[in-house]
Amino acid sequence: MKLYGIASSTCTGRVLLSLFEKEVEDFELVIVNVRKGEGKKPEYLRLQPFGLIPLLEDGDVTLYESRAIIRYIANKYEGQGTALYGKDIKDRAKVDQWLEVEGQNFNVAIRSSLGVVSKPPIDEALLTETLGKLGKVLDIYEDRLSNTQYLAGDFFSLADLSHMTTGWKLFDKYKQGSILFEGRPHVKAWWENISSRPAFKKLLEMI
Amino acid sequence: MKLYGIASSTCTGRVLLSLFEKEVEDFELVIVNVRKGEGKKPEYLRLQPFGLIPLLEDGDVTLYESRAIIRYIANKYEGQGTALYGKDIKDRAKVDQWLEVEGQNFNVAIRSSLGVVSKPPIDEALLTETLGKLGKVLDIYEDRLSNTQYLAGDFFSLADLSHMTTGWKLFDKYKQGSILFEGRPHVKAWWENISSRPAFKKLLEMI
Ligand SMILES: N[C@@H](CCC(=O)N[C@@H](CS)C(=O)NCC(=O)O)C(=O)O
Ligand SMILES: N[C@@H](CCC(=O)N[C@@H](CS)C(=O)NCC(=O)O)C(=O)O
Repeated sequence: MKLYGIASSTCTGRVLLSLFEKEVEDFELVIVNVRKGEGKKPEYLRLQPFGLIPLLEDGDVTLYESRAIIRYIANKYEGQGTALYGKDIKDRAKVDQWLEVEGQNFNVAIRSSLGVVSKPPIDEALLTETLGKLGKVLDIYEDRLSNTQYLAGDFFSLADLSHMTTGWKLFDKYKQGSILFEGRPHVKAWWENISSRPAFKKLLEMI
Repeated sequence: MKLYGIASSTCTGRVLLSLFEKEVEDFELVIVNVRKGEGKKPEYLRLQPFGLIPLLEDGDVTLYESRAIIRYIANKYEGQGTALYGKDIKDRAKVDQWLEVEGQNFNVAIRSSLGVVSKPPIDEALLTETLGKLGKVLDIYEDRLSNTQYLAGDFFSLADLSHMTTGWKLFDKYKQGSILFEGRPHVKAWWENISSRPAFKKLLEMI
């Protein structure tokens, strides 16, 4: 199995995390440095027409879109490592729901904040505005996480995992996002819990 | 099973289509008219904290996010109607990939165009710009559909289905989008094929 990307990219990191949680070791990380334009080379575009990372090659399966790849890893290695899709189709439904919330709401909001903090000098007014939008999403998480330990239920899943690489950048690396934990104790406890997982520490060592 | 929403909303329509393809009849459509603010009533917000439609209640499963709901319908009724997830985990992976492309790329672009055409007087320059962005996504579809009959492979799936309600509005109802078929014969043939399906005609009768 070949994974094309860079470990420090949030989208590639999402896939690496799923491989680590599943205890998959027989894969190779092939570096495609999109920052140097390597995503737009014709031979790469033939495999990934959007010119983005990550991309997975597994025998005759060529797959892109990080949230599709992590689902595939969870399905293919169903019998080993963490049960990332839960135990039945009801669990699976909740995992898919929160993966969609992550992709459609959380990700859009957190990327706006990351866009501001990663390009100093920081526009404080814009940062407050983007963090405000993310906070609105996290209010819904706070409510959910006061009822269940993880997003999809009382089990760690693809849904939690999908938040970790972008979350780490805003909450831990740039730190500005950690202000959002104030008044949201369940989100804070959830973040501390999931970011202490061995698979996540393994990823951080690669970054 | 209760589906909360309105048939003419693209997101609710997506779920209705999956029920029709799966030949599911034991469900009730409960009207939540978001245009009249019914999505923001406290009793609805308790079930769907974002205040949006659709929402599915199936016994003890309460589910939102249209693309999560259609996946659940495909899984729950795996043995009947159209095989919307294909036949194995490789097919499933491709379906998930193209569902992500739809949700993250096609949907964002087509909603911009729909935002312009649905609010006359039409800003022609803005329409050209938004259609141009959608066209770039459809160039990738043209390439794909010149190799396979449907997006995920040679089988109709959730991935194709997920495009139909927004596609219908821009290509058939408002018609302005049909200009994008020029120079993209495979996209045109794909659209004509999928929009002639009985499940789709059944939905149109409800709108
Ligand atoms: N929806 C895609 C997004 C992929 C994506 O945006 N990848 C980024 C890295 S996180 C990239 O390749 N950026 C390079 C560029 O935009 O040229 C996924 O989840 O895989
Ligand atoms: N990602 C959600 C989006 C839901 C959504 O935006 N629903 C629209 C109808 S298509 C809605 O409820 N709009 C009412 C509003 O924005 O208040 C899904 O796919 O279910």
